[in-house]
Amino acid sequence: MTVRSKRAKPSPAQRALILRAQGEMGIADIATIETVPPDAVRVRIISCGICGSDDHYYRAGRIGNFVVESPMVLGHEVGGVVDEVGADVTHLRVGDKVALEPGIACHACALCASGKYNLCPKMSFFATPPVHGALCTEVVYPARLCFHLPPPLTTEHGALCEPLSVAVYAVETKARVQPGQVVAVFGAGPIGVLVALVAAANGARVITIDMNAKRLDALKALIPNAETLQPCTEAEETAAAVRARAAQVGAAADGGTWEGDVAASIDCTGAEPCLRAGIFAARSGGVLVMVGLGRPEIRLPTVEALTREVDIVGCFRYRGTWPRCIALMASGSIPLDALITHRYAFEDDAVRSAFDACNTGQGLDGRAVFKCMIKLAPEPDDQA
Amino acid sequence: MTVRSKRAKPSPAQRALILRAQGEMGIADIATIETVPPDAVRVRIISCGICGSDDHYYRAGRIGNFVVESPMVLGHEVGGVVDEVGADVTHLRVGDKVALEPGIACHACALCASGKYNLCPKMSFFATPPVHGALCTEVVYPARLCFHLPPPLTTEHGALCEPLSVAVYAVETKARVQPGQVVAVFGAGPIGVLVALVAAANGARVITIDMNAKRLDALKALIPNAETLQPCTEAEETAAAVRARAAQVGAAADGGTWEGDVAASIDCTGAEPCLRAGIFAARSGGVLVMVGLGRPEIRLPTVEALTREVDIVGCFRYRGTWPRCIALMASGSIPLDALITHRYAFEDDAVRSAFDACNTGQGLDGRAVFKCMIKLAPEPDDQA
Amino acid sequence: MTVRSKRAKPSPAQRALILRAQGEMGIADIATIETVPPDAVRVRIISCGICGSDDHYYRAGRIGNFVVESPMVLGHEVGGVVDEVGADVTHLRVGDKVALEPGIACHACALCASGKYNLCPKMSFFATPPVHGALCTEVVYPARLCFHLPPPLTTEHGALCEPLSVAVYAVETKARVQPGQVVAVFGAGPIGVLVALVAAANGARVITIDMNAKRLDALKALIPNAETLQPCTEAEETAAAVRARAAQVGAAADGGTWEGDVAASIDCTGAEPCLRAGIFAARSGGVLVMVGLGRPEIRLPTVEALTREVDIVGCFRYRGTWPRCIALMASGSIPLDALITHRYAFEDDAVRSAFDACNTGQGLDGRAVFKCMIKLAPEPDDQA
Amino acid sequence: MTVRSKRAKPSPAQRALILRAQGEMGIADIATIETVPPDAVRVRIISCGICGSDDHYYRAGRIGNFVVESPMVLGHEVGGVVDEVGADVTHLRVGDKVALEPGIACHACALCASGKYNLCPKMSFFATPPVHGALCTEVVYPARLCFHLPPPLTTEHGALCEPLSVAVYAVETKARVQPGQVVAVFGAGPIGVLVALVAAANGARVITIDMNAKRLDALKALIPNAETLQPCTEAEETAAAVRARAAQVGAAADGGTWEGDVAASIDCTGAEPCLRAGIFAARSGGVLVMVGLGRPEIRLPTVEALTREVDIVGCFRYRGTWPRCIALMASGSIPLDALITHRYAFEDDAVRSAFDACNTGQGLDGRAVFKCMIKLAPEPDDQA
Repeated sequence: MTVRSKRAKPSPAQRALILRAQGEMGIADIATIETVPPDAVRVRIISCGICGSDDHYYRAGRIGNFVVESPMVLGHEVGGVVDEVGADVTHLRVGDKVALEPGIACHACALCASGKYNLCPKMSFFATPPVHGALCTEVVYPARLCFHLPPPLTTEHGALCEPLSVAVYAVETKARVQPGQVVAVFGAGPIGVLVALVAAANGARVITIDMNAKRLDALKALIPNAETLQPCTEAEETAAAVRARAAQVGAAADGGTWEGDVAASIDCTGAEPCLRAGIFAARSGGVLVMVGLGRPEIRLPTVEALTREVDIVGCFRYRGTWPRCIALMASGSIPLDALITHRYAFEDDAVRSAFDACNTGQGLDGRAVFKCMIKLAPEPDDQA
Repeated sequence: MTVRSKRAKPSPAQRALILRAQGEMGIADIATIETVPPDAVRVRIISCGICGSDDHYYRAGRIGNFVVESPMVLGHEVGGVVDEVGADVTHLRVGDKVALEPGIACHACALCASGKYNLCPKMSFFATPPVHGALCTEVVYPARLCFHLPPPLTTEHGALCEPLSVAVYAVETKARVQPGQVVAVFGAGPIGVLVALVAAANGARVITIDMNAKRLDALKALIPNAETLQPCTEAEETAAAVRARAAQVGAAADGGTWEGDVAASIDCTGAEPCLRAGIFAARSGGVLVMVGLGRPEIRLPTVEALTREVDIVGCFRYRGTWPRCIALMASGSIPLDALITHRYAFEDDAVRSAFDACNTGQGLDGRAVFKCMIKLAPEPDDQA
Repeated sequence: MTVRSKRAKPSPAQRALILRAQGEMGIADIATIETVPPDAVRVRIISCGICGSDDHYYRAGRIGNFVVESPMVLGHEVGGVVDEVGADVTHLRVGDKVALEPGIACHACALCASGKYNLCPKMSFFATPPVHGALCTEVVYPARLCFHLPPPLTTEHGALCEPLSVAVYAVETKARVQPGQVVAVFGAGPIGVLVALVAAANGARVITIDMNAKRLDALKALIPNAETLQPCTEAEETAAAVRARAAQVGAAADGGTWEGDVAASIDCTGAEPCLRAGIFAARSGGVLVMVGLGRPEIRLPTVEALTREVDIVGCFRYRGTWPRCIALMASGSIPLDALITHRYAFEDDAVRSAFDACNTGQGLDGRAVFKCMIKLAPEPDDQA
Repeated sequence: MTVRSKRAKPSPAQRALILRAQGEMGIADIATIETVPPDAVRVRIISCGICGSDDHYYRAGRIGNFVVESPMVLGHEVGGVVDEVGADVTHLRVGDKVALEPGIACHACALCASGKYNLCPKMSFFATPPVHGALCTEVVYPARLCFHLPPPLTTEHGALCEPLSVAVYAVETKARVQPGQVVAVFGAGPIGVLVALVAAANGARVITIDMNAKRLDALKALIPNAETLQPCTEAEETAAAVRARAAQVGAAADGGTWEGDVAASIDCTGAEPCLRAGIFAARSGGVLVMVGLGRPEIRLPTVEALTREVDIVGCFRYRGTWPRCIALMASGSIPLDALITHRYAFEDDAVRSAFDACNTGQGLDGRAVFKCMIKLAPEPDDQA
């Protein structure tokens, strides 16, 4: 089997953002992979989003049991352009813009066989130690995990697919939000905002709860008809306020037949008061979807959940979401321009500014951060 | 248990449109019901849409096994105002505008218990022999089937809930259309147009197929970005044209990874060529949703459906759709003003004109009919 | 509408077990209902099981927010014989043995409409204050909640349908146990045993965990191939032991491809260590089903549940389970003779002995109690 | 990456059953693959079932559009023993008995990404031209498609996984049979019998319909409580008989609340009268699952299907069924010894006898054929 190379000459080295140890990060040369396997493609990375987990590895050197023990390339939210195509690949051509799904499952275990590949115990995932990330000039990657971005989508849309996937998975797969339902979203950080956007795109009325009034204002600017609330001291009070708001919204949406018409609570905080309020707020037979990671153990109102059959359902990453993300963005449901608030060059100082902005929630320009994007190269024109 | 009557004096008689026998139709007096049961309300009917089935009963005296054997009040698409409230009713007040769901299920059989009350074999349904319809001055009706219309919705929106429910049920419950998907709608008559509108409101890209170019033009005027096609001689050719169009539209919607990206075909014609084309057009793993009623038996490409797992799924009326219809109309997704093309007084000649317009598809004013509305009384002002 | 009475002469009074206040219980006369509504039947109660909740009302005068504030008939696990049939009832005849489902839902609210009638906020349930129970000579009851017991089933099978329903709902509806799966059941009390029996009847391999070795021995006598374990000090240790046992059993059941092959943990204790162990023991993508009620709030390993997507799902009573219970018992899957350990006459002293036996777990004969049955009359012969 | 070879010396050639052209079949030498890729294993084939499609290729040289244009190895129902393990494989060891899933999907298209890999347009499937089958001494195959058979399962159980998968997919995935339901199976050939067995293992009451009384008797010998029927002249009559039988069975199973209690009709014939009867027989809201392939187009009672919402759902092969098959067989639900009626040596004459027996339905011993198994080598002992 020969490689059907479509590439003039391979570059012998490339640039990558390396985390050498806690707090030690910089751009350096790493080797390129010379040969593209038959089922893979070589992708020039153009855009890479910075995620809270990247920043956490940088500052803490670890996340839970995942410890950075040897130098690791960061970055897992990437879009790029196909530069070389493996011999067996038929659905991509050189020049195609693509979004990369960052995890390679084993496809051999029972979890993969059952379709739940996101739970694969052998998952190899960008920038999760000891696996390198993709904030580098190029990657050679399985073609089946590279999704074509049709015009007018750009590699920034591609990079946004990763955080958007978290939201799509929570809303469409786990909460199974249906048009007309009322959904309570706890947390108006980046994931909470994306969850609210995807729920709204699916026809839900969304009530978002956050302590930070500025975040709620920002969310209202993005989503017409968004309802927002600040939490109360006690989870039951917060839940009562959410249910009261739902009764108003739901009166229009639902004929007023549900008393507390929250079909799903989706928690994007991991905080105990939010998880508890989510259970109290959900209607009987509803669901609390857990997206945000917090303390390992939380005291939950289990009798309340049991007697009203509010299921408690967790989301670990996502599965099968890239085509849905691309479809949602192509249909105009996701306002990318408002979401990518800051862009940075692929240079040491600029990258560090991006991480700082991500960490503090504010850029050097004084504007609140939603998503910081590293630009490794200019966005190419779409092909004829 | 006493009736908490809020009504000054019951009217001893009322006016109703009676179908006495095939072709014999007229407005006449019928008795009113004196006492409102505890779980019911009395509704003054303000607006009643004319449906093809009303006209069919008028001209043929029957639909299938349902034969008009004794005089029957016509009409099942109604909106009105609450005039009296039963003792146990808490979600409605006198003066509320309401939309009436026209079928009363038994709630005792296994189908009702399973939630599929639309299939209840003991269903009592407006204007389906021998059950009287609601094209009359007032009805006393179960409160749980009367849905509050919040301002600025009118009783015409209420009347429109019935045909709109057919579309909501087909699109959201049966086809489970998701934002970004491509949907093929066969037929651009009243139901086809509503199906296309609801699919578009759910974020789908819609391709509508009809032989009648005028209908397609009318549809394009209602739905921005609507795609339309006229069918070919052979079902396979039509399907190929639909798939080609989907590939154009779907390239944007779906990353181009599906070859023929029609997630759902929804047939609103009942015609053999359309059902067949719908199966050939749907993507593997997709669905053909049957809405339109045609000949009792149809030759279908079963091996094609089996080997590509295109499910064939029927819709009988609807269930649980009124709240969703009200929410869709309240959100502005359904252009009522463009849909109600003709209005008629509740007088013998006017009503007969309405039926004729419905039958010929053209009003006396020469304009094409979408929906004819009988006005039994002026629209009341909304309450403070 | 006339009542098609098939009854010679109505008895003017009947005997019932009345709880007058905390600790005050006795058999007394109450009135009979004279007229059977068209959709109801009159049932002579023959057998009534005593449930822990009956005993709890007797000793504490309340369960949670449900307080006995006026005299109430006890009993909700009943089987009897049809004595009179309402005019509209077609599926029952005088003389039929029947099992009674003890809750009457409103069938008007959104929860009922969605099929989840067990969550109906207006549920009227036998022996839940202020609703009278059925430990009395006769009840007039909706025919749709009276399920025919085909020969050779007796009214004791009918009475057993109620606790068995809890198990069927947990195993089949909530855990969706499939043949060949491994299921961990926490608690070997009456409900735990029934859950294990139903899971085994569905082809699952069952591992039951309880501190009480005698209970485990009793369970092993009932279920061939039952696996049993006593819990460890720490929930993680217990879970590890369960997973190790599952790996042995599951190697046979599942091809050895799952590492800890517990498809579902079903908790019948409500105890914190069990709920926690249930989450740790379940395989990724599995489920913890909560059946037992314990303290209102429990500290759960939420990050474990989230990252391995172990859903936490509660059961409130049951819905739609009577036909399935009857089928299971008719097929011989449930060893009724071993389960009904004690029988008592319907006399004051005997009934009090039954409650004491239920409370202490041991009868006057020294034998351990599984289910105590009050016999209100001799079991009638089956009709020709 | 090096191959961790665990094999003494590769055999330079092996024996395979080759179909050279229509009617020309014989055992001959073919080359072995020398190197095992990292994610693959080398399997010595021990048992291979003969399927109707193998026989059809032999006698007709084609099935539909799949034409044998160059010599092809036959056989796709195989079990064997692992002989060599690729470097990256961890779940299998040399000496493990395994069942092989015969199709390799691309895992790159949208159908694969959505989990519906059985619909993958690039599927490479054993003994489907031009892909070679597995009736040969050994195959090198992706490890993820080789499923460990725990003791006491044999390679014959492994071979049986393939036809059993058709049944598991139809019953569990498509018909979603629940315990206690009544299921009508059309056709008592090999697939019909397996479907009936799997439905019974899932707790269903099964009614099987076939013209051939001997087949029905054989089925009754396999399944306790099996109900059987011969069809009538008209589909409606057959359906009425099925519904009447269901009412009897369902009276026990279901309390008699459904009038025609057939939750699912599963057609294993592809014949028009059966598909039609399946629709008429299914209860409202039920399903017709199409398994058998027949004529390309069939006249169906579409208005009946639509108005009673009987979904028409096809099965193409299977997905994710091997672990389920192994679990079912390990739990004793499938009587392998009764199903494998004839065994043949891997020699030209014997193999031809096997094909003839498969074709005529009767072995040289005069006994009816259920499944013919070719034994390529003696069954190895299980390892310590």
